[in-house]
Amino acid sequence: MRRNIYLRTIPIEEALARVVAKLDRKALVGVERIEAARAAGRITAEPVMARYSSPTYHSAAMDGIAVRAAETFAAREGSPVRLAQGEGFVFVNTGHPMPATYDAVIMIENVVMDGETATIEAPVAPFAHVRRIGEDIVATEMILPRHRRISPYDVGALLSCGAYEVAVYERIRIRVIPTGDEVMDFTARPAPGPGQVVESNSMLLCALADEWGFACHRVPPVSDDPEALARAVAEGLASDAHIVVTVAGSSAGSKDFARATMERVGEVLVHGVAAMPGKPSLLGVATDGKLLVGAPGYPVSAVVCFERLLYPLACWLTRCEPRRRQTVMASLARSVPSRIGMVDFVRLAVGQVGSRYVALPLSRGAGSISTMTKAQAVTQLPAEAEGMEAGAVVSAELLVDAGELERTLVCVGSHDNTLDILADLLMRRLPSIRLASSHVGSMGGLIALRNDSAMIAGAHLFDPASRDYNFPFLTKYLSGLDVTVINLAIRQQGLIVAPGNPLGITGMAALADGTVRYLNRQRGAGTRILFDYHLEQAGIEPARVSGYDREEHTHMAVAINIRTGAADCGLGVYAAAKALDLDFVPLAQERYDLVIPTAYLDDVKIKAVLEVVGSEDFKTRVRDLGGYETAWTGQVMQPGMGLPDGE
Amino acid sequence: MRRNIYLRTIPIEEALARVVAKLDRKALVGVERIEAARAAGRITAEPVMARYSSPTYHSAAMDGIAVRAAETFAAREGSPVRLAQGEGFVFVNTGHPMPATYDAVIMIENVVMDGETATIEAPVAPFAHVRRIGEDIVATEMILPRHRRISPYDVGALLSCGAYEVAVYERIRIRVIPTGDEVMDFTARPAPGPGQVVESNSMLLCALADEWGFACHRVPPVSDDPEALARAVAEGLASDAHIVVTVAGSSAGSKDFARATMERVGEVLVHGVAAMPGKPSLLGVATDGKLLVGAPGYPVSAVVCFERLLYPLACWLTRCEPRRRQTVMASLARSVPSRIGMVDFVRLAVGQVGSRYVALPLSRGAGSISTMTKAQAVTQLPAEAEGMEAGAVVSAELLVDAGELERTLVCVGSHDNTLDILADLLMRRLPSIRLASSHVGSMGGLIALRNDSAMIAGAHLFDPASRDYNFPFLTKYLSGLDVTVINLAIRQQGLIVAPGNPLGITGMAALADGTVRYLNRQRGAGTRILFDYHLEQAGIEPARVSGYDREEHTHMAVAINIRTGAADCGLGVYAAAKALDLDFVPLAQERYDLVIPTAYLDDVKIKAVLEVVGSEDFKTRVRDLGGYETAWTGQVMQPGMGLPDGE
Repeated sequence: MRRNIYLRTIPIEEALARVVAKLDRKALVGVERIEAARAAGRITAEPVMARYSSPTYHSAAMDGIAVRAAETFAAREGSPVRLAQGEGFVFVNTGHPMPATYDAVIMIENVVMDGETATIEAPVAPFAHVRRIGEDIVATEMILPRHRRISPYDVGALLSCGAYEVAVYERIRIRVIPTGDEVMDFTARPAPGPGQVVESNSMLLCALADEWGFACHRVPPVSDDPEALARAVAEGLASDAHIVVTVAGSSAGSKDFARATMERVGEVLVHGVAAMPGKPSLLGVATDGKLLVGAPGYPVSAVVCFERLLYPLACWLTRCEPRRRQTVMASLARSVPSRIGMVDFVRLAVGQVGSRYVALPLSRGAGSISTMTKAQAVTQLPAEAEGMEAGAVVSAELLVDAGELERTLVCVGSHDNTLDILADLLMRRLPSIRLASSHVGSMGGLIALRNDSAMIAGAHLFDPASRDYNFPFLTKYLSGLDVTVINLAIRQQGLIVAPGNPLGITGMAALADGTVRYLNRQRGAGTRILFDYHLEQAGIEPARVSGYDREEHTHMAVAINIRTGAADCGLGVYAAAKALDLDFVPLAQERYDLVIPTAYLDDVKIKAVLEVVGSEDFKTRVRDLGGYETAWTGQVMQPGMGLPDGE
Repeated sequence: MRRNIYLRTIPIEEALARVVAKLDRKALVGVERIEAARAAGRITAEPVMARYSSPTYHSAAMDGIAVRAAETFAAREGSPVRLAQGEGFVFVNTGHPMPATYDAVIMIENVVMDGETATIEAPVAPFAHVRRIGEDIVATEMILPRHRRISPYDVGALLSCGAYEVAVYERIRIRVIPTGDEVMDFTARPAPGPGQVVESNSMLLCALADEWGFACHRVPPVSDDPEALARAVAEGLASDAHIVVTVAGSSAGSKDFARATMERVGEVLVHGVAAMPGKPSLLGVATDGKLLVGAPGYPVSAVVCFERLLYPLACWLTRCEPRRRQTVMASLARSVPSRIGMVDFVRLAVGQVGSRYVALPLSRGAGSISTMTKAQAVTQLPAEAEGMEAGAVVSAELLVDAGELERTLVCVGSHDNTLDILADLLMRRLPSIRLASSHVGSMGGLIALRNDSAMIAGAHLFDPASRDYNFPFLTKYLSGLDVTVINLAIRQQGLIVAPGNPLGITGMAALADGTVRYLNRQRGAGTRILFDYHLEQAGIEPARVSGYDREEHTHMAVAINIRTGAADCGLGVYAAAKALDLDFVPLAQERYDLVIPTAYLDDVKIKAVLEVVGSEDFKTRVRDLGGYETAWTGQVMQPGMGLPDGE
């Protein structure tokens, strides 16, 4: 019989509080004195006092002449005072100490020199243009309080005041141990086969730790063997690490050994937090007082465990507050479900649409690595929420620089490989523009435009009645919205088949008897509409097509299924077949356009898109993909134009 | 004759554009292939494609049993389907590859096991709970675009997809050369004498460069000798640095050699930018194509040069956008002047007062090191502005984490050494609270409360008529505002004199004949009011006091002037005299109170202050300063209470 244990989850705040109550941070994290010159990012363990004043002396604040103010009091316009060099004045440069007996500086531009005599026509007050001793900081005064993260500016202030050494908390040292029979050590640059994945969470944590100011040491992956795992954890505890992290195996399945290992070396304080992803997180304290963390193995879950549990606890160990990310309010481009009782961390692509921010919820899968590169923000749906409706405004924590959002263009709609080329060329501009594209099919793109949650949509909707592209649908779904349609490319659609076309597929007829396993695209995709049209032309009932209900969301996803034999055939673009060395049975050309609300044509990002799409560089690279024609690329489309060759 | 050259300044944007037009970044900054695992923070030089798909195989998305969906179609509640292990199903764990011929997973909690037979009461669809191959990323797809700063998440994605190496731009290498006869090398831990300063700008730049992802190498300071400077710059150009920075000597004075040195090795493109501080900045390009920067010597000017000129140019060299700081809108607590034609960078202490942010402009001096540690934000007053009025709302670029503002308590008013103890103890709390105190005198504090630009004010205003503290002034200046007055301490004021009291000063009478050089406090300071009261009691005309018009802003600034002989005597607290080993002639006890609008008593930060002030720890440390009594410390004051012992 298999174990079937449900984790009893607790809220993240409660999980943190349990650890804080048990961990003795004073015993765990020491104080060390280090050079102030290299102390940026560290946390002061005690207040720092100035050893010397700033300035340490009265000094000239301007280039000019040092004078005795009392000797200038009679100077007036037309009734000047004359002073002799060396007696009545001396030259000083900014920063120079004031010579003895002199108490004011007159700027050089207010002095008329005649040989060794200076003539001035206005009096100066005592200490005019003089930086007085201790004006800024007086020796013994506090420069930095305790528990302060030392900034680069603080480094300057510390050295200036002679505080050459500072007492800081040790840098937190983390030991990370990836685990699992299926994970491969990236250092060997492996080619993962079925059942294998390249281990990456440990280096992700190392990179995060570096940003946080912690030191993270990774060891090679350990297999799912309780003894090997126990040895690795024991080594971690014997090292100088303050925190030992295992990655994967943290749930309650038959091969999840993290909990049992933790129980052997200490006490489990938390097993399961009320967060999705990230639920199967483990926290404990070792007998020797070190913090133990068991992170889930799925990358997005691991990130939640690292950022929401490990990071605040490590900050607490060094008495500093976790850095808080900037947030913006953004409206959701589509609704997201959420489980009651669990906080949901939803990764978002965010861009500016008109004057507001729009957030596209990305795939929720804990293993969805692409969301790691695509997300510009993350939002928390509270435990009491049952989900959020499209249009709801959420607080989005930014994962990127705030300036990047203004340079992010939200593109929603159909997927096409040429969008990658567009994205690349937009990034080459100065300033660069980031294309945040969400592949929801052509219809999805039009709906996004209607809801003002995108500035641009990719569409290739074929209307059999008019034999035209997109315009009949714009009339129907975007009436009242003035849009401009720009052609991106003419592309070749066809049946993607295995190399060598082993089933000898030559056209739609091959799908009629249900023996060929077809792989379809999702509802609303222009490619599915095209498929339905060709089914109808061929007189084939959809129900007779094997796999009509199996859906993928992109051309490339269809292609990889065929590549691996999971399906025999799917409709898609030539570029997808070519990328994976598959065979291709041409079916039809079609027009892929960008639909842009005319009101946005003046937007700098849209202008950049139009410039790129109109460039020879773009067209050349599109044609190099194969299966594309660029005769109309960059041109404004009008209703009834159909295809260039009149198809 | 001295040179008297005015710099012809140009706007920062124009300065940057001149360099961008001249510098050949393609020749200067190379591309290198590095391990993806260590690539966080670097900038991609070309798009990165996935080598493997994610997942690389169809895998179970849940712990449970793998089945053939078609064999479950008949299952209904009350009409179950039974499957035999190894024939009808196999157990799978999350992440496991789907065994051949199986195409769906049933969660373990929906299965009833009886020996080797699984009973299910509901059908499953094909590919239910299966993560399909390439569902997330398909091999050959773009993972990262060109010119992207690689994030920790990106590192995870790169490794997962087998992109073990990435082409990135070289890390920008900076060589920084501090200069000046007056600067001392901090590595020797010197004690600066008159005319000397500890060099700190080079390490400040190193710390900033580290944050920016650049590498900065510092060489020891070079004296104001044109040949030595030329040698140091030549060594920098011969090194692997992309950018050579000299610090100080960048203006047009008689000892400013940076420009002449730059002219010997290349072309000066910019000398003088329309910015305060930071005006005497130099930019040029060396004959060999490297970027040359001459930064001003004053620390705050140097920071402007580093952040506004060097940083954007270094970013441009690696094709990335400068990170933009988060901004908040904050209202100015007092007016700031500004020069037309120059952008003014004004450093600010910012805190939350009620629901808005309030910004206290800090000292404008380019050499004001304390503003480096006190500023939480910086604002730019545009070139066309003649200054900003108090209450004006400005955009404040945050120098600290956004979360810190909520934990910052703005305290405006009189200066007292016990505020440092309060600040320290507030930083020890969890979460820590930062006290941003601005020393504008007791009256200045009350005015700040009236304008709602502070939540707390320190005051020790003595009213001779009633012999009471603060309340008569509250009635007069804060009528209509309900405030609570809490005693911070009773403190000893007296005449601070040189060690050994060489002039034999025993009281106010010593000031009557004008021979003793007194140092006064600024108008509105409670200490000045106290001084005026004692002058009147002693029957001395202010005009007869030598130095009555010389003003300092804090007790410590008064004390350091006496310490160095710049003045003979000043009124201040005992703690200031003790800190600098000065003698002290007691004059009077006085009450130092915290004045808090009653509406803010529930604020967490104010609550924290009241807790700290009421603690024994605080009282002990205050008494240890010397010259303080704590009989009433933490207690609510009422009108007419005067002093504990009835003075």
